[in-house]
Amino acid sequence: MPDPVVTLTTDFGRDSPYVGAVKGVILAINRLARLVDLSHEIPPQDLRYTSFFLRACLPFFSRETLHLIVVDPGVGTDRALLLVELECGKLLVPDNGCWTELASSTPAPPHVIQLTEPRYRRPTVSATFHGRDILAPAAGHLSQGLAADALGPPADSWVSLDLPHPRREPWGWVGEVVFVDHFGNLITNILAQDLAAHRECCFEIGTRSLSRVVRTYGEVPAGTAVALISSFGMLEIAVNQGNAAAQFQAGVGTPVIMRTARADVAGG
Amino acid sequence: MPDPVVTLTTDFGRDSPYVGAVKGVILAINRLARLVDLSHEIPPQDLRYTSFFLRACLPFFSRETLHLIVVDPGVGTDRALLLVELECGKLLVPDNGCWTELASSTPAPPHVIQLTEPRYRRPTVSATFHGRDILAPAAGHLSQGLAADALGPPADSWVSLDLPHPRREPWGWVGEVVFVDHFGNLITNILAQDLAAHRECCFEIGTRSLSRVVRTYGEVPAGTAVALISSFGMLEIAVNQGNAAAQFQAGVGTPVIMRTARADVAGG
Amino acid sequence: MPDPVVTLTTDFGRDSPYVGAVKGVILAINRLARLVDLSHEIPPQDLRYTSFFLRACLPFFSRETLHLIVVDPGVGTDRALLLVELECGKLLVPDNGCWTELASSTPAPPHVIQLTEPRYRRPTVSATFHGRDILAPAAGHLSQGLAADALGPPADSWVSLDLPHPRREPWGWVGEVVFVDHFGNLITNILAQDLAAHRECCFEIGTRSLSRVVRTYGEVPAGTAVALISSFGMLEIAVNQGNAAAQFQAGVGTPVIMRTARADVAGG
Repeated sequence: MPDPVVTLTTDFGRDSPYVGAVKGVILAINRLARLVDLSHEIPPQDLRYTSFFLRACLPFFSRETLHLIVVDPGVGTDRALLLVELECGKLLVPDNGCWTELASSTPAPPHVIQLTEPRYRRPTVSATFHGRDILAPAAGHLSQGLAADALGPPADSWVSLDLPHPRREPWGWVGEVVFVDHFGNLITNILAQDLAAHRECCFEIGTRSLSRVVRTYGEVPAGTAVALISSFGMLEIAVNQGNAAAQFQAGVGTPVIMRTARADVAGG
Repeated sequence: MPDPVVTLTTDFGRDSPYVGAVKGVILAINRLARLVDLSHEIPPQDLRYTSFFLRACLPFFSRETLHLIVVDPGVGTDRALLLVELECGKLLVPDNGCWTELASSTPAPPHVIQLTEPRYRRPTVSATFHGRDILAPAAGHLSQGLAADALGPPADSWVSLDLPHPRREPWGWVGEVVFVDHFGNLITNILAQDLAAHRECCFEIGTRSLSRVVRTYGEVPAGTAVALISSFGMLEIAVNQGNAAAQFQAGVGTPVIMRTARADVAGG
Repeated sequence: MPDPVVTLTTDFGRDSPYVGAVKGVILAINRLARLVDLSHEIPPQDLRYTSFFLRACLPFFSRETLHLIVVDPGVGTDRALLLVELECGKLLVPDNGCWTELASSTPAPPHVIQLTEPRYRRPTVSATFHGRDILAPAAGHLSQGLAADALGPPADSWVSLDLPHPRREPWGWVGEVVFVDHFGNLITNILAQDLAAHRECCFEIGTRSLSRVVRTYGEVPAGTAVALISSFGMLEIAVNQGNAAAQFQAGVGTPVIMRTARADVAGG
């Protein structure tokens, strides 16, 4: 595997020298590593956001990819650091549950390794920057062909986040906003198949309601609010060429209710 | 063409999982593609800004480059998706006019293709994310050497933006601010050659005026407002080590008037 | 040196077409150059910030790396442009002192060259964008193997910033905040060894005080303020899972006093 891709996802911020330090460590070990920035703007230490983010973009990558993820509120404590082998690549992550949603979409339990081998760390490991001192060197060595098992022993348990699940009711679903994108579109945790089964629905977002279901934004005039299936496969509330988060005064955690027209008759 | 460069320009926002999804799709097709981020901070769905942005940076690239551009307010409607072959590379773009200024600086009409071939799309095409499902796979396949014509039939017309042009008057020019850079410098649509012909000018920006023309910022003390020829080849209003946008309370669309001293005599 | 890494550090802003122009110029000369973004969010024209930034991340890179740095308030004046050879790579920089801290951490004086050779500039050099017209072509040619000496004559002097140094007092140290990271952690210019020698200290940040010294954030409950040794090797004031800059109303330049408990007896 020459010239392997190493993606980077951190909460360091776009102006941070920490990003550069991590890149330097990887490239000093393997200058042929192909670094690909995913985001350095994960909200600081927000594990739930990270879990959504990873589920939204990592599945498009291939198995040979390395993914370095540094969102690490527990840095320097005894939380483990992990290598997780998935269909979409090998994750290098703190054991804090930030890959919970990726894990739950995997059919078989993943192969997980604890990164304990000191040989593949920086000579001096700081107490506050394991991304640079442990995860980045592991990425550098793996990208050169080091076998995963050389990094430490298998792990048989790991942290999972307790994420909100939508609730089934006789008349529909109760979910919530789980992600607000850059356009202000509200992505919920209600799944596409639950929406698809009911073409006539009405939705409540906070104190506001909505009944227009479309396939894409451009089917309605600019400024019109609609419900649709997002490209993530979930119910999305959007405003064509506008900002639904602002219009509905909604954000992550805002309850979203979907009432299905046929529910009273057929029970769903 | 091994290891081709694929540049990315989007309005997805720096914290967006959409960027990562696009990168994953390209790299899963051709893991040797060299991804180069241009910007993911195009103001949402701002086609005029996109047009300026592309004209400002794409001409520096070479013909072998692929440029993926995803600013797409019409996603999911029947607007076409295009491959445009220019001197500065091949553009993969929605047909919304976002490359209008690049087009007008090209001597011959460009070769344009409609991306209709389903074989080079993702197996399932969403209604809201053609950047990921159509443009990104096209970039991946082209970067592997696929001939452009395999992607669809030639297009003989496309959308153009109706952009503001500066107006010639007997006493000078009436233009407007078309771009404000990160330093607050005001880039106008008045061309360098029109400024260069008249070393003594006076300028009106909104309700304020200015008469100092310089070659570069450092010729005047910090805080002084000047007019100069921007590196884009247009009239620029700047404040040395300051922020002209703030000082002049100006932004995109603010009128800028250039009065040339010799105009009354010689007519320009 | 095939496929060399060229890092980019600028104050152009994340939405800037200037970044794309620089990338285009480098890749048009050497399409195999591996571009690595460090930051495009250096605060505009902030040389002191740049100096800290470079010292914080460049030392992790290897000697073969090229580092293009465009923070250039003096663009177009007669300030020189330099190639600086360091252990961590070759810097291409305006001569404005932005690499002062890197220079002072180097044992021997670096080899420095003035970039005067017109052959390795763009055919037309603008007065306002030497990053694109002089530094970027130099990076492109160096990445193809051009010898550094071909770019111009050696320089034997260069600008240095006058940076604040911490002051030794009989009872401790008086320093200041030199960097605030994305998490709000306050990095000071008081060195790790001065803190390490005194496990019992008390600190004054502006009008507030603090006496808790820890090894890492997670040793205290969320919301607790602590002092620790940052991953940069300097005294850091932080709030576990909180924002110290907000809590202490502190920023770059805020005085930080460290009183060492044993100082009265032993003089430190």
